[in-house]
Amino acid sequence: MTLKTPIVAVNFKAYYPYSFGENALKIAQDARKVWEETGVQIILAPPYTELKSVLEVVKDTEILVFAQHADPVEPGARTGYIPLEGLKEAGVQGVILNHSEHRLKIADINWLVKKAKKLGLYTLVCADVPETGAAVSILGPDIVAVEPPELIGTGVSVSKAKPEVITNSVELIRKVNKDVIILTGAGISTGEDVYKAIELGTAGVLVASAIVKAKDPYTIIKDMAENAKKAMK
Amino acid sequence: MTLKTPIVAVNFKAYYPYSFGENALKIAQDARKVWEETGVQIILAPPYTELKSVLEVVKDTEILVFAQHADPVEPGARTGYIPLEGLKEAGVQGVILNHSEHRLKIADINWLVKKAKKLGLYTLVCADVPETGAAVSILGPDIVAVEPPELIGTGVSVSKAKPEVITNSVELIRKVNKDVIILTGAGISTGEDVYKAIELGTAGVLVASAIVKAKDPYTIIKDMAENAKKAMK
Amino acid sequence: MTLKTPIVAVNFKAYYPYSFGENALKIAQDARKVWEETGVQIILAPPYTELKSVLEVVKDTEILVFAQHADPVEPGARTGYIPLEGLKEAGVQGVILNHSEHRLKIADINWLVKKAKKLGLYTLVCADVPETGAAVSILGPDIVAVEPPELIGTGVSVSKAKPEVITNSVELIRKVNKDVIILTGAGISTGEDVYKAIELGTAGVLVASAIVKAKDPYTIIKDMAENAKKAMK
Amino acid sequence: MTLKTPIVAVNFKAYYPYSFGENALKIAQDARKVWEETGVQIILAPPYTELKSVLEVVKDTEILVFAQHADPVEPGARTGYIPLEGLKEAGVQGVILNHSEHRLKIADINWLVKKAKKLGLYTLVCADVPETGAAVSILGPDIVAVEPPELIGTGVSVSKAKPEVITNSVELIRKVNKDVIILTGAGISTGEDVYKAIELGTAGVLVASAIVKAKDPYTIIKDMAENAKKAMK
Repeated sequence: MTLKTPIVAVNFKAYYPYSFGENALKIAQDARKVWEETGVQIILAPPYTELKSVLEVVKDTEILVFAQHADPVEPGARTGYIPLEGLKEAGVQGVILNHSEHRLKIADINWLVKKAKKLGLYTLVCADVPETGAAVSILGPDIVAVEPPELIGTGVSVSKAKPEVITNSVELIRKVNKDVIILTGAGISTGEDVYKAIELGTAGVLVASAIVKAKDPYTIIKDMAENAKKAMK
Repeated sequence: MTLKTPIVAVNFKAYYPYSFGENALKIAQDARKVWEETGVQIILAPPYTELKSVLEVVKDTEILVFAQHADPVEPGARTGYIPLEGLKEAGVQGVILNHSEHRLKIADINWLVKKAKKLGLYTLVCADVPETGAAVSILGPDIVAVEPPELIGTGVSVSKAKPEVITNSVELIRKVNKDVIILTGAGISTGEDVYKAIELGTAGVLVASAIVKAKDPYTIIKDMAENAKKAMK
Repeated sequence: MTLKTPIVAVNFKAYYPYSFGENALKIAQDARKVWEETGVQIILAPPYTELKSVLEVVKDTEILVFAQHADPVEPGARTGYIPLEGLKEAGVQGVILNHSEHRLKIADINWLVKKAKKLGLYTLVCADVPETGAAVSILGPDIVAVEPPELIGTGVSVSKAKPEVITNSVELIRKVNKDVIILTGAGISTGEDVYKAIELGTAGVLVASAIVKAKDPYTIIKDMAENAKKAMK
Repeated sequence: MTLKTPIVAVNFKAYYPYSFGENALKIAQDARKVWEETGVQIILAPPYTELKSVLEVVKDTEILVFAQHADPVEPGARTGYIPLEGLKEAGVQGVILNHSEHRLKIADINWLVKKAKKLGLYTLVCADVPETGAAVSILGPDIVAVEPPELIGTGVSVSKAKPEVITNSVELIRKVNKDVIILTGAGISTGEDVYKAIELGTAGVLVASAIVKAKDPYTIIKDMAENAKKAMK
């Protein structure tokens, strides 16, 4: 599957009970409905334990399923770790790397990006500020998301509170990598935030609590997808 | 479900392709067959991504499914981590903690053991030597396994190469905890190793590669289960 | 040098500028004065960079100097780590292990305690609750300090706020280790706190900010030492 | 003090007894002699415990003393960690960051580089391959050293075994940072290796065992310094 833009990427994180079981399936079903209605590229990143059930829900759509993290290990005697081969086997199309809640060493990010490419897995690498966004972009990931940690989970969107983080990111990243897809993250809560993020030069958003903990995920995903489409025109 | 002894616990680790996908299901099916034939308590610990499919295979049996590890985190904004609540939701009956390939801090082991108890999850805590086996036993896990790391994965069983590790473990652990189930681990490869382990005073074994990478897991599991039964008499 | 009780152990931590340079020397000089006046066993644990200068200040006294932490590594190609051999060479008499701000894995605590013993270094192992205090005591350290993390640095002393933590610790630890010296830590601020800690059955205290950030460390150390003496009678 | 080139940077690591005590002082004295004779820029990176004594030995020279690592922490209640402020207070002029034996997360490298700059400390950031060398160079360190981990400590110098690593590094790094000083590392053992490293476009070397474990450090440092000078002409 190819990556299309704009992108609405949903990080399920590990909220309880929201990110697990029936709740996780509900989010996936809602995402599926929105995709059927809008065709917007959606990425879903549920916990490891929910990957296969979510994959089942979005079968035969263009929705992509990513793991939230990958351990920098080769397959083998690694109790409790999941190497990229194991994620590939589970059926995912990509992985999030270096999320602010699960940072990686730079050498490991590079190793994982290169290996994922070989295995045919997409990589979405997070960074905290424009400079580190540019730094990881040199390593050749498919997607990069710059998320100021102080806004993550606040409901105060980076596109409103710190638009310069987005424009600086785009500027610094484009100097070193013409192709990487740039996403906006941290505090994204509404369709308007998504519109703004794209207007400022990125290709979509990385969202978590606003969708995952919503009473009605469908409405939010739909609003974001529609705004993404509108903004890309 | 209650824990019965003797126990054959199978750590799938992260061997590729053995621990994943069809291979993981095959091991679970073989274990199911052995349980149906012998009634011996089997514990299966597949990778996070395989937990639900393995649970499906062993449904309506007394086989227990454990996660290979649990992260010492509360549910919430913890990208790429799985709190105990998430594992419980996935349906597992227990967790392995502090495996030599995924060591934990002592305060975290204690926190996880206590929390697992509250959630109704069993804990199997690993240790490297008799002293640390006794140390973690004070924290009140359901099962403890002493595995000398230098023998793990070697095919040289601790019951043959270092029987005194087993007898010392039993002695030290029983001084501080009368109830914890003690397993023998590291290099366990044959039914004979299992017999020896039980003869030396433990209640079963923690096995990995000998079963997971076997051409015919059924034969090995069966041999181990039968020897376990014979030795317990 | 032998360990005498009661003990007033001072963890310098990494307060700036308090724990470093002239400030660190001042604390060491004040401790020296108190030792000369009271003879009470004092342990000083400055940052790695200050170890040698503090050792110089307390030369020819019975004051002991401990490192705040030891890395579980053999000497060798380990850039930025300090093995026990390096600490020994620097002249220290012991090490703090597993402080709540620098937790260690249980297997590593055991390895470090055993190796320190061989090298002739004392070990002071911290724990967060009575159970983990008992767990680490099984490993045979010279000193154990149970410090509820929620009270560390609060100025609310464990001896007042949670005396049962102290009495439970003593009870659980004595079941598994008759000899280890038990210290009270977390929030210890005054001589009275020290008196109470000893009255509750421990052999002294582990203190940090109350001394290190004090305008006049001498007065506090003196007050604590005198109360320690009085309580031990 | 300003950084001059060429540079011979000596990582003392944690070899025992080589990196500690009298041995550490001997290396510093030898380096001082070479500096007096050649004027070549030397950087010495001893263990934390030896920083002050080494600084004393090289007083009133242009030799710089770096810590081998810095922890990404603010000063405060951080037992066993040393914040940049503490290193500055000890008198060092800079820090090595992200050595292959002590990797850091990319966000932490960025935080440390920025903070070191504010405190007036130099940063020497290591990387494992040309791409990660370029990635960390975006963050604005003073010096970057690309060291293929598989050659570190082998005595097989990267300048002979993998000259393309050096030329690729220079090419990729210069695209994103015109000013950073580039060093060659891994397996550097002789003056000839140093000559080659400079000839291939870098400004000097990062050396460890070849000097630290040498019977006569002076001869090696001298040979390297002279070759560095010759090659820079």
